[in-house]
Amino acid sequence: MTNTVKVGILGATGMVGQRFVTLLQDHPYFRITELVASERSAGKAFKDAASWVLDQEMPQNLRDVVVKTTAADLDVDLVFSAISGGKAGPIETSLAERGIHVFSNAKDHRWDADVPLLLPEVNADHLALVDRQKTSGKIITNGNCSTITMVMSLKPLHDVFGLKRVFVSTYQALSGAGYPGVPSMAIAGNIIPYIGNEEEKLEKETKKFLGKLGTEGVTLSNVAVSATAVRVAVTEGHTCAIAAEFESAPSPEEAAQVLREFQGPPQKLKLPSAPQRPVHVRMEQDRPQPRKDAMTEKGMSVVVGRLRKDPLFHLKWVVTGSNTIRGAAGSNILGAELFVEEKRL
Amino acid sequence: MTNTVKVGILGATGMVGQRFVTLLQDHPYFRITELVASERSAGKAFKDAASWVLDQEMPQNLRDVVVKTTAADLDVDLVFSAISGGKAGPIETSLAERGIHVFSNAKDHRWDADVPLLLPEVNADHLALVDRQKTSGKIITNGNCSTITMVMSLKPLHDVFGLKRVFVSTYQALSGAGYPGVPSMAIAGNIIPYIGNEEEKLEKETKKFLGKLGTEGVTLSNVAVSATAVRVAVTEGHTCAIAAEFESAPSPEEAAQVLREFQGPPQKLKLPSAPQRPVHVRMEQDRPQPRKDAMTEKGMSVVVGRLRKDPLFHLKWVVTGSNTIRGAAGSNILGAELFVEEKRL
Amino acid sequence: MTNTVKVGILGATGMVGQRFVTLLQDHPYFRITELVASERSAGKAFKDAASWVLDQEMPQNLRDVVVKTTAADLDVDLVFSAISGGKAGPIETSLAERGIHVFSNAKDHRWDADVPLLLPEVNADHLALVDRQKTSGKIITNGNCSTITMVMSLKPLHDVFGLKRVFVSTYQALSGAGYPGVPSMAIAGNIIPYIGNEEEKLEKETKKFLGKLGTEGVTLSNVAVSATAVRVAVTEGHTCAIAAEFESAPSPEEAAQVLREFQGPPQKLKLPSAPQRPVHVRMEQDRPQPRKDAMTEKGMSVVVGRLRKDPLFHLKWVVTGSNTIRGAAGSNILGAELFVEEKRL
Amino acid sequence: MTNTVKVGILGATGMVGQRFVTLLQDHPYFRITELVASERSAGKAFKDAASWVLDQEMPQNLRDVVVKTTAADLDVDLVFSAISGGKAGPIETSLAERGIHVFSNAKDHRWDADVPLLLPEVNADHLALVDRQKTSGKIITNGNCSTITMVMSLKPLHDVFGLKRVFVSTYQALSGAGYPGVPSMAIAGNIIPYIGNEEEKLEKETKKFLGKLGTEGVTLSNVAVSATAVRVAVTEGHTCAIAAEFESAPSPEEAAQVLREFQGPPQKLKLPSAPQRPVHVRMEQDRPQPRKDAMTEKGMSVVVGRLRKDPLFHLKWVVTGSNTIRGAAGSNILGAELFVEEKRL
Repeated sequence: MTNTVKVGILGATGMVGQRFVTLLQDHPYFRITELVASERSAGKAFKDAASWVLDQEMPQNLRDVVVKTTAADLDVDLVFSAISGGKAGPIETSLAERGIHVFSNAKDHRWDADVPLLLPEVNADHLALVDRQKTSGKIITNGNCSTITMVMSLKPLHDVFGLKRVFVSTYQALSGAGYPGVPSMAIAGNIIPYIGNEEEKLEKETKKFLGKLGTEGVTLSNVAVSATAVRVAVTEGHTCAIAAEFESAPSPEEAAQVLREFQGPPQKLKLPSAPQRPVHVRMEQDRPQPRKDAMTEKGMSVVVGRLRKDPLFHLKWVVTGSNTIRGAAGSNILGAELFVEEKRL
Repeated sequence: MTNTVKVGILGATGMVGQRFVTLLQDHPYFRITELVASERSAGKAFKDAASWVLDQEMPQNLRDVVVKTTAADLDVDLVFSAISGGKAGPIETSLAERGIHVFSNAKDHRWDADVPLLLPEVNADHLALVDRQKTSGKIITNGNCSTITMVMSLKPLHDVFGLKRVFVSTYQALSGAGYPGVPSMAIAGNIIPYIGNEEEKLEKETKKFLGKLGTEGVTLSNVAVSATAVRVAVTEGHTCAIAAEFESAPSPEEAAQVLREFQGPPQKLKLPSAPQRPVHVRMEQDRPQPRKDAMTEKGMSVVVGRLRKDPLFHLKWVVTGSNTIRGAAGSNILGAELFVEEKRL
Repeated sequence: MTNTVKVGILGATGMVGQRFVTLLQDHPYFRITELVASERSAGKAFKDAASWVLDQEMPQNLRDVVVKTTAADLDVDLVFSAISGGKAGPIETSLAERGIHVFSNAKDHRWDADVPLLLPEVNADHLALVDRQKTSGKIITNGNCSTITMVMSLKPLHDVFGLKRVFVSTYQALSGAGYPGVPSMAIAGNIIPYIGNEEEKLEKETKKFLGKLGTEGVTLSNVAVSATAVRVAVTEGHTCAIAAEFESAPSPEEAAQVLREFQGPPQKLKLPSAPQRPVHVRMEQDRPQPRKDAMTEKGMSVVVGRLRKDPLFHLKWVVTGSNTIRGAAGSNILGAELFVEEKRL
Repeated sequence: MTNTVKVGILGATGMVGQRFVTLLQDHPYFRITELVASERSAGKAFKDAASWVLDQEMPQNLRDVVVKTTAADLDVDLVFSAISGGKAGPIETSLAERGIHVFSNAKDHRWDADVPLLLPEVNADHLALVDRQKTSGKIITNGNCSTITMVMSLKPLHDVFGLKRVFVSTYQALSGAGYPGVPSMAIAGNIIPYIGNEEEKLEKETKKFLGKLGTEGVTLSNVAVSATAVRVAVTEGHTCAIAAEFESAPSPEEAAQVLREFQGPPQKLKLPSAPQRPVHVRMEQDRPQPRKDAMTEKGMSVVVGRLRKDPLFHLKWVVTGSNTIRGAAGSNILGAELFVEEKRL
């Protein structure tokens, strides 16, 4: 398996598309063969079509690739979709009907009964949901960025101690809003205690992530979440302050050990993008911090700190993760690696 | 009553002292007659002793006042203490023994049985605790800055609906850490999920603020609080994301009305520093924001927004207040105004 | 003259329009009678048409004013134009033809031979250029925001010492880019060393500001300027680092005195928006700073500091001014006050 | 040459010391054998002695190394000195007398007649000055961080076009002030137009960097510099806006070519820390930007942009470089590599 799976990027000219493009450079499985965007970009060289906004440079070898629309013939085995929520749905469906597998970062298909909301360390078994899809191309979705960060820390504890209720307040990075995203005049020296639909996603997607796959699909988990989502002036890394109630209350030390030792299918399969430890635990009292911790293991691990007893529920902690890598493109790619490894291609 | 009460500022050269100094310019009751600081500053003109850090200018009329130590004779009726926690305690006690009333921003006496932890809109009746103090000078303390911000929004609801449990996550401003305070290299593009002893204060002081005054002193309230305290890159204004459980659950609309209409003794007495409305309620989905809302009614009001049903408890909201005015010097001064109005001087 | 001049705001719903609206509350001469915007806003109440972005609130009395387009009958004596450069030109001309005076913040007419580029402390006499305009309504323009800040410090020195050459590097605030303006992801922890056309304006407008009015119009000044314009993460206040060569070299002390004592026609006429001192000089080695100094005298003064000998030219200094008040709406209003005072209405 | 030169870090517990420590991990020539700090730290494990402030982690293999003072026997061939200016001088002299070579980041010996102010791409030949030092250990100093950034862009042009006069305004990062350095309350939403002694260093050190080595030592260059140094809210990367006058004026295109093709001794010798191109030239109109460009070639290259004609002098440009790598520890290490390569050890 060397670089032999042909992949396309949908919405390649946008900020999330640009992240897929940079993350997939030198990938051992995947080779970008198509860059796909809207009519406005079609026919142009990528370097002219994309207004490049990432701090890293545009990969040299893609600068002159001509951007296509989805209407074109696409020489791909699968695509990563960075199309905006709302627009993505019908385009992704139509590609699946053409036999192209779609790993989507958009929200549109997340609640389709036959579509996995996949986070490989958390619910790799949900990938089997695609067997219920009628199209030859399969659609697999990513979760919301802050939800992924939180759920990465919930799952190991849920498995052992049985999670019941969760309060979460978020401290979310600017990069989560895309580009141009949050105006600097809005956030300079400020916080904004509202992010459209984010609290709903935190409260709802957690139930599907932690749900059980049965013969009838995914049964949602009973875990109840209450969320407050707030934007802060951080460029990268969503942080969640969490308080949780369990069936069986762990001590902070027990919780730390369970989190530290957690291994999911990506670790066992040694998938190329899998971090060695999905969850790092830090004991310093002032960590995790997004600027220092979000890029742990290339942004694929989340970092937990401040594990302590909660006076109302059982346990409190803080978790930080890269919202653009682990919370978005990186988890999508990890999912596609699992898909390849399971020989579903 | 025109400007006839002689006041001194303890710790006048520090950042909190500087705020007392600027807030007391042109006060209808109080006239600054003494600036007090450590040995190092004593004998110097204020303009030379204080490394001025506030954005507003040092008042012209105080520039040449000679700074004294507490060992000197002080021509004052009362003092505002901006001495650091840890050092403040014995100095404040000694001044009280000399017959000088002390309104303190420091934490040292907050838990003395006979010392009110005073927030005039919330527990003005606690001021009577000073009758139990044996010294002729009385000591009255302020609460912690983030606790005050939160409690200003809890009290009106507690009175009507009976508060039981509260989860709070904070988004705290840099000015709360004094000067030089947080290094810019620590907080640039970052958040720091730890503020020493802040969570303990939020969890504990709330019980005294909401406690009942009886013949034996203050009986602590049963209200249980769980707090996570986080520093963010905001200059002024602490924000709290709160979820609360009540005896009798209010709807968001009922809660909004109660908050909006809340009036405490400072409003009824029309104290000079009392805001017209202690709690403002905003209906825009993205408010309150510290940069826009912290200075509402000269920083003496808190601003509540995002009142909504909570999926686990009953009600969620976000509240912002000026940490240096309402959360510190402003509430101290308001307390001293109450003290004067009650003819306790 | 109490509040009797009827004024309209063109582009009232945008950020600059919002500043006009807030600055004109309780103005002694002017009363806002019309809010004007594009087709999209027309017919709506101002509170619904404008997405309010300023930190100060929308004035209560304007919330229900119905927004019109310029096609409507306008009950005004003069208008302030906050229309974007490029679009403003023909609209402003057409209003002038209808007999409405236009005080414009846009660049479109700045270089018309008969249109004053007016900065009242600097070239009040240029206002007489309007006598050459053929329309009954007159057009008067404001300069560019960073140019105004710089020129406020150049003019007093030019008058006395004869300015020849100027190097300027700017440190410009986010508010100068309007709203949404600079994306937070672009400027977070960063500077951007490019602002479209800003250097050209600094280099060219200075020549007109300092030019001489003769019978044939304004003869441009020979003062030569070289500018580098850079955006920094400051919300309000443009700062210029300046080195200047003179006919007759002043010492820093002489320069400080000239700047401090400078008075222009607005000061002599005691116009309502005129600051007492157009230029403040600070001697602290670390001033001016935009966060601390931009709002000096309600944002109508500029603040000079770091006056020192220059090893190549003669004198170096740093000057800060409010880009949205003195550098934009405030200077426009001051110009209109001069227009009224000269009985040109 | 594999990792065989034994090096010590003086001032290892401070911020600059920490950078040496992280940069020297896995260095092909150098192996850290001693960590040296003040009495307060001596005898402690590095992990306990150093309050670690860098975003990267402390190297595992150094965590338990016991910190010594300079009074101890030191098993080293050379040391890198991160001691503060003012304290460094006598300590460095004393080490040189003990036969230990000192590569210093401090300013104390920069102006000693026999001590090279070394920037290997610019004045590698100055290293021969050490032959004039009487001690068996040699002292070599680094320049100031903003001066290095500027001079890296001046030198190639100077060689070809003959530099005469330079105006420079800086936009300097927070990391340049060390730790705790600039208080967040001072710089939040602000700039500070003063950095102690920085302008003097820019104006003076340039003359030594560009000076000629003769039999009597270094003859200072006639190049005259006028500098304004300003702190901005950027974490890493100093930026300089430069205007320059030459003997023979280059066009922007000629200058770009000369800069792009510039190679110094480190490139010719392929020193381990040498960037492939010391100067990168970008053609986008909004580059260089510190957040995006400071780490070019691991922070060892500077990035030039906005090359354009100057209306007063000949050429203007903007240059950004990593102040902590190229402007400090990285250039020191590159100098030591040159020292080794020249067989001076």
